[in-house]
Amino acid sequence: MATLGDIGVSALINILTAFAFLLAFALLRLQPINDRVYFPKWYIEGKRNSPTHRGGNFVGKFVNLNFRTYLTFLNWMPQALQMSEEEIISHAGLDSAVFLRIYILGLKIFGPIAVVALLVLVPVNATGGTLIFLSRDLVVSHIDKLSISNVSPKSLKFFAHISMEYVFTFWICFMLYKEYDRVASMRLKFLASRSRRAEQFTVLVKNIPHTSGHSISDSVENFFRRNHPDQYLCHQVVYNANKFSKLVRKREKLQNWLDYNQIKFQKHPEKRPTRKTRFLGLWGERVDSIDFYKQQIKDLDLKLTMERQKVLRDPEFILPAAFVSFKSRWGASICAQTQQSKIPTLWLTNWAPEPRDLYWKNLAIPFVSLTVRQLLISVAVFFLVFFYMIPIAFVQSLANLEGLQKAAPFLKPLIEWGFVKSLLQGFLPGLALKVFLFVLPSILMFMSKIEGHVAFSVLERRTAAKYYYFMLVNVFLGSIITGTAFEQLDAFLHQSPTQIPRTIGVSIPMKATFFITYIMVDGWAGMASEILRLKPLIIFHLKNMFIVKTERDRERAMDHKSVDFPETLPSLQLYFLLGIVYSSVTPILLPFMLVFFAFAYFIYRHQIINVYHQRYESAAAFWPHVHSRIIASLVISHLLLMGLLSTKKASQSTPFLIVLPILTLTFHKFCKSRFEPAFRKYPLEEAMDKDLEDSPLETDPNFKSYLADAYLHPIFRSVEEFELAEIRNDQHQAHASASDHINALSPPPHFPRHHHRDVDDEEQQMHNIHRYEIEPPRDVYHQQESTK
Amino acid sequence: MATLGDIGVSALINILTAFAFLLAFALLRLQPINDRVYFPKWYIEGKRNSPTHRGGNFVGKFVNLNFRTYLTFLNWMPQALQMSEEEIISHAGLDSAVFLRIYILGLKIFGPIAVVALLVLVPVNATGGTLIFLSRDLVVSHIDKLSISNVSPKSLKFFAHISMEYVFTFWICFMLYKEYDRVASMRLKFLASRSRRAEQFTVLVKNIPHTSGHSISDSVENFFRRNHPDQYLCHQVVYNANKFSKLVRKREKLQNWLDYNQIKFQKHPEKRPTRKTRFLGLWGERVDSIDFYKQQIKDLDLKLTMERQKVLRDPEFILPAAFVSFKSRWGASICAQTQQSKIPTLWLTNWAPEPRDLYWKNLAIPFVSLTVRQLLISVAVFFLVFFYMIPIAFVQSLANLEGLQKAAPFLKPLIEWGFVKSLLQGFLPGLALKVFLFVLPSILMFMSKIEGHVAFSVLERRTAAKYYYFMLVNVFLGSIITGTAFEQLDAFLHQSPTQIPRTIGVSIPMKATFFITYIMVDGWAGMASEILRLKPLIIFHLKNMFIVKTERDRERAMDHKSVDFPETLPSLQLYFLLGIVYSSVTPILLPFMLVFFAFAYFIYRHQIINVYHQRYESAAAFWPHVHSRIIASLVISHLLLMGLLSTKKASQSTPFLIVLPILTLTFHKFCKSRFEPAFRKYPLEEAMDKDLEDSPLETDPNFKSYLADAYLHPIFRSVEEFELAEIRNDQHQAHASASDHINALSPPPHFPRHHHRDVDDEEQQMHNIHRYEIEPPRDVYHQQESTK
Repeated sequence: MATLGDIGVSALINILTAFAFLLAFALLRLQPINDRVYFPKWYIEGKRNSPTHRGGNFVGKFVNLNFRTYLTFLNWMPQALQMSEEEIISHAGLDSAVFLRIYILGLKIFGPIAVVALLVLVPVNATGGTLIFLSRDLVVSHIDKLSISNVSPKSLKFFAHISMEYVFTFWICFMLYKEYDRVASMRLKFLASRSRRAEQFTVLVKNIPHTSGHSISDSVENFFRRNHPDQYLCHQVVYNANKFSKLVRKREKLQNWLDYNQIKFQKHPEKRPTRKTRFLGLWGERVDSIDFYKQQIKDLDLKLTMERQKVLRDPEFILPAAFVSFKSRWGASICAQTQQSKIPTLWLTNWAPEPRDLYWKNLAIPFVSLTVRQLLISVAVFFLVFFYMIPIAFVQSLANLEGLQKAAPFLKPLIEWGFVKSLLQGFLPGLALKVFLFVLPSILMFMSKIEGHVAFSVLERRTAAKYYYFMLVNVFLGSIITGTAFEQLDAFLHQSPTQIPRTIGVSIPMKATFFITYIMVDGWAGMASEILRLKPLIIFHLKNMFIVKTERDRERAMDHKSVDFPETLPSLQLYFLLGIVYSSVTPILLPFMLVFFAFAYFIYRHQIINVYHQRYESAAAFWPHVHSRIIASLVISHLLLMGLLSTKKASQSTPFLIVLPILTLTFHKFCKSRFEPAFRKYPLEEAMDKDLEDSPLETDPNFKSYLADAYLHPIFRSVEEFELAEIRNDQHQAHASASDHINALSPPPHFPRHHHRDVDDEEQQMHNIHRYEIEPPRDVYHQQESTK
Repeated sequence: MATLGDIGVSALINILTAFAFLLAFALLRLQPINDRVYFPKWYIEGKRNSPTHRGGNFVGKFVNLNFRTYLTFLNWMPQALQMSEEEIISHAGLDSAVFLRIYILGLKIFGPIAVVALLVLVPVNATGGTLIFLSRDLVVSHIDKLSISNVSPKSLKFFAHISMEYVFTFWICFMLYKEYDRVASMRLKFLASRSRRAEQFTVLVKNIPHTSGHSISDSVENFFRRNHPDQYLCHQVVYNANKFSKLVRKREKLQNWLDYNQIKFQKHPEKRPTRKTRFLGLWGERVDSIDFYKQQIKDLDLKLTMERQKVLRDPEFILPAAFVSFKSRWGASICAQTQQSKIPTLWLTNWAPEPRDLYWKNLAIPFVSLTVRQLLISVAVFFLVFFYMIPIAFVQSLANLEGLQKAAPFLKPLIEWGFVKSLLQGFLPGLALKVFLFVLPSILMFMSKIEGHVAFSVLERRTAAKYYYFMLVNVFLGSIITGTAFEQLDAFLHQSPTQIPRTIGVSIPMKATFFITYIMVDGWAGMASEILRLKPLIIFHLKNMFIVKTERDRERAMDHKSVDFPETLPSLQLYFLLGIVYSSVTPILLPFMLVFFAFAYFIYRHQIINVYHQRYESAAAFWPHVHSRIIASLVISHLLLMGLLSTKKASQSTPFLIVLPILTLTFHKFCKSRFEPAFRKYPLEEAMDKDLEDSPLETDPNFKSYLADAYLHPIFRSVEEFELAEIRNDQHQAHASASDHINALSPPPHFPRHHHRDVDDEEQQMHNIHRYEIEPPRDVYHQQESTK
């Protein structure tokens, strides 16, 4: 445990680190060559085409020579504050704006609490006088003098802590209520202000039953024509395009090689590039590269055409899911909220996510499978959270040299070499843990995908939830109680329910210095490293050096990631938990927390304005989770305080404290019914208002045609406009023919060969789907509007 | 603990008691004088007007002289089986039919389990041989030889029990699935087969906001005309008629006195009855009774007219709730399932219950109040369940004579009288407990009413839930573990979570004989006393002797209660719990259970056909609760078996058993999403089918006018048809005038004075509302139809 001096030293180190990062950032961001790393958002928006601050000469293209700008190296901070909230909403979306509000909420909650706690509780604790009599050098730090540990058992002073816990709880609930109210109305206002979009009129229907003699498309049409006669407009079936998209990716690679060779040939027209035909061009007959790739692409195009035909014609490739569009938002709203079928597991309707938000792969999972998947994943998450040390220990045991020698005797001489030995023994165990923690978010995201959610936004929220449980058990409890989570679980199972809060509660004040250090390392220095973007910076310059050939390539080399909700939300919630738990135990922790919230607010504001580009817009759908986890933190803090006080022989105070969690949970229940429907449902009043405000849909043929294609699998978007129409016809013919079982007669549509731009676009789509990274598909309707 | 012989004696006693009851029933039911007690259902249906089996002479009117009928005194049993399920549904409703299915389900579940358990587990247990070596006279009964206690610790034989637990769980889940499926489809079929009814087209809207300058009625009309333009038909506001109904009850009493005096005068025309004017006619001026009551009624009628006017005219009396009717079931269905308002706590819509099912008083409770009420009641239920001994102990301590003497010294001589003393000490403590258990259902019903549910069906289900918790803790756990529930709670809080199942599990086999006796006393003899209807029999004859003046009075003296769901469902669920828990522990209990299910099935079938008259029809809405409580029993049995085995040093079996509750809960989750919507929502497909099948509503003016009044507070139903029309006009004027604030000018409608029949009807309504007992209000629409 550290004294105040130790904490001061740690604070100094972390502040210096943070400043070093900030300074580096301030210097690097001014260099034109880094412009695309630190301002990618502006490039995407098309508001910036080339670095500003460009000097006149060649060097000025890469290095900022205007030395005046270096003098104001911290001016990004006021710049970041210039944008108003409305501007941020229109610039980066509601998700980002509400994400920033969480930091402000932290300041609003903990600011007054810090003042009150420091003024009231610190004097009460400091004059408690238990620990003063103990040996100063032994265990007790100076920080403990200011914490609840310093109050002698059975003291009446605990009523100060209990009453403060009441005050804090009411304050936090009050702020939470106000914030929930504000966010809910912001959401409604945001949704109301949006222009006409496909997802407002469209419902995703899953689990469409197969009826013999009818295609899926016919079933959908019949069902909705019958049950929503006045409102049904059109629908789109969902194709299973997994094989097709594999081919498209292959074609894309070949095209890349072709381009590369053509550029090579242009640069050195004297020598036509050649390659060998077999296995990565390593052996086989030597041929002309350009001809080779052209031929390959031609062959593949034929395959693609056939595959596309097959997908569009063969009813086997149509999934039992569809996007059904309605004539009004009102019609879509009632369809999304009601039960359609007599069998409650068929014809499941829900709002369609935005087209760019869709995770296509999960659309086909049947209902029973979903239940099983969710069971399996929740068991897996439980094991991951509580037994995550086991696989790591296994890897680490491999690093046990005796074991390795036995398993692979031929490695013996290598292992006995001193350097390798120390590497294996000293480095590998730590590396295994680091690797695991690094891949953890991906593992959790993979688990969420298996659960079968159909939108990235939902996937990210579910991943965030899993990550939160992991942090709660392994970071919070794991730091407080020694031993692995599994050992804790075992201990808890053999303790009485009243013993658990005591076991944890009694360790809480002792761990305050650890968490203060944690906040400084993870919250202060970590935040500063976030703004530096060291990894994207290096990657961008590497790509720039080796890959980038055209301006378009350079644009694609930019890494405009979005706010990383699956990681940032859980760690934010952990900070709230720490602040709430320690507010009445060791209030000296709160100022460190406040610095974190303020600093992180600046940094994320800057990043949201200049860097991040959201891949979807969920209109703050994550807020109910944030709210309920802060409520959970409150309840945890009540239980721990109860446990702590009972170890202080003040367990007669339990009846005073037991009321708090009950009231808090009631407050939560109230908030849930008061605000949550605004995040889950779409009120008819709102839908009707928007419908009446708009011009009727019938008068806008453009939008109707846009709707007809909005939810086409992005893989088919590669096709030109006129071909889209053709696909539409194909669909109709296909459905007609599918029901008549005459597939072969309609003429095959041809695949576009010479539209390089389109293939690029398509590749972007590919990124969206398969690497799940970059851009939304271009918005056909809005393009149409803007060109009018 | 009892030996097999003891159990045999107990069984004999209970069987004899049951036979005595049955014999008494068989004799009494044949007497014409008791006909209305044992066949009230047929009188209500109008299929029986006077006792059958009537002899020719005067005595034959009261006593059955046809001795042949006595010889076949058990023939009610085959008679009860004659009706098919469809006939029962049309005769008594789906609720009753599905209620009977629970008993059949019990037989289906426990029949095969009993066979398998007796064939497999009893031999395994009997050859276990632990207890044989112990002193036979000491503790162990013969029953224990057949139970799991007889197996020696660490024995591999426990795998027989574990595998049987698997087999039983799968069998129970399979039967539950089949039954849920069947009940859900029966419900849909039943709903589909119903003729056009008000509740199919009507939605109850609560929390209508007050807008200044508009009446509630105007707000409703505007809101629904705007948001459901094509579907909205009409609406009815809800009046706060509590004061008015008080006056109506007063008038009714006066009318009764008038009738009594008039009949008296007719019988003795020589003497006009007189009474004194003050205080129950005990002193004051002596006046002519008939004139006195006529004058009183006249005065009251004036008051009633004014009050009624006030209620109908004054917007103060209109509650912020309304019944909104739609042009089609489809329209009502979407309104009931969707969120209407931007503020999720306003304009809350839900299906309207049947008019006869409504609990009018709770319609006005605002949303915030509901949250608080539910919190308070759940805390109260918790205390009632765990601390119910405290008030009883308090009453019992009053019976402590020293305390009583101190509290009321003047009672000293009385108390010292031996008889009173022994009465107080010996009788009162037991009486306090009995009185508490007797009033418990009423207390729980009262609590449910405070929670704010608006339908009797929901109130009864909520009461059943509370009663179940009470039985689970106080009957099941309370019998297994000695000590009050409060002491148990205290013990559990200080035990580890793994210790609790052990503590309970280890006592389970020891209590088997107790529960066998319980089944025989409560299940066998108790059931037989149910069919005898001793209480209604006595009350009917008392009423007949003293009160009944006319045929109508005699009809009202009949006590045709409904199936007492709040009490029967929880005790049924307790039987399921016992059967499931003991199936793998002491399977010898199962045959007793089977006898109970079979016997109770006969008896309830007879009662449902001949006696009970349901006051509402919820179309088996209670089934999800039955299902989930059987699932809960399964999980409890898994946990207890785990605990029991761990005390048998077989805790390495835990991993095999821990899978079972997880699988069971997953099965429950699956069933919930698969079937529960059928009980909570009304699928659009179904609504549309029914709408298309029917003639359009517009062509049926009768139904439209019926809809307009279906949800009028029954208190206003006393008025004749033409006056109903007037009220409708009044409503319109009232709303118009309410918004214009001109109340005084419209002419006062007059109150009917000379419609004795109507006042009677009205009284019946009163019974419905205030004593919550007897009949549905006559169905105006169906009467209209049948008279056409």
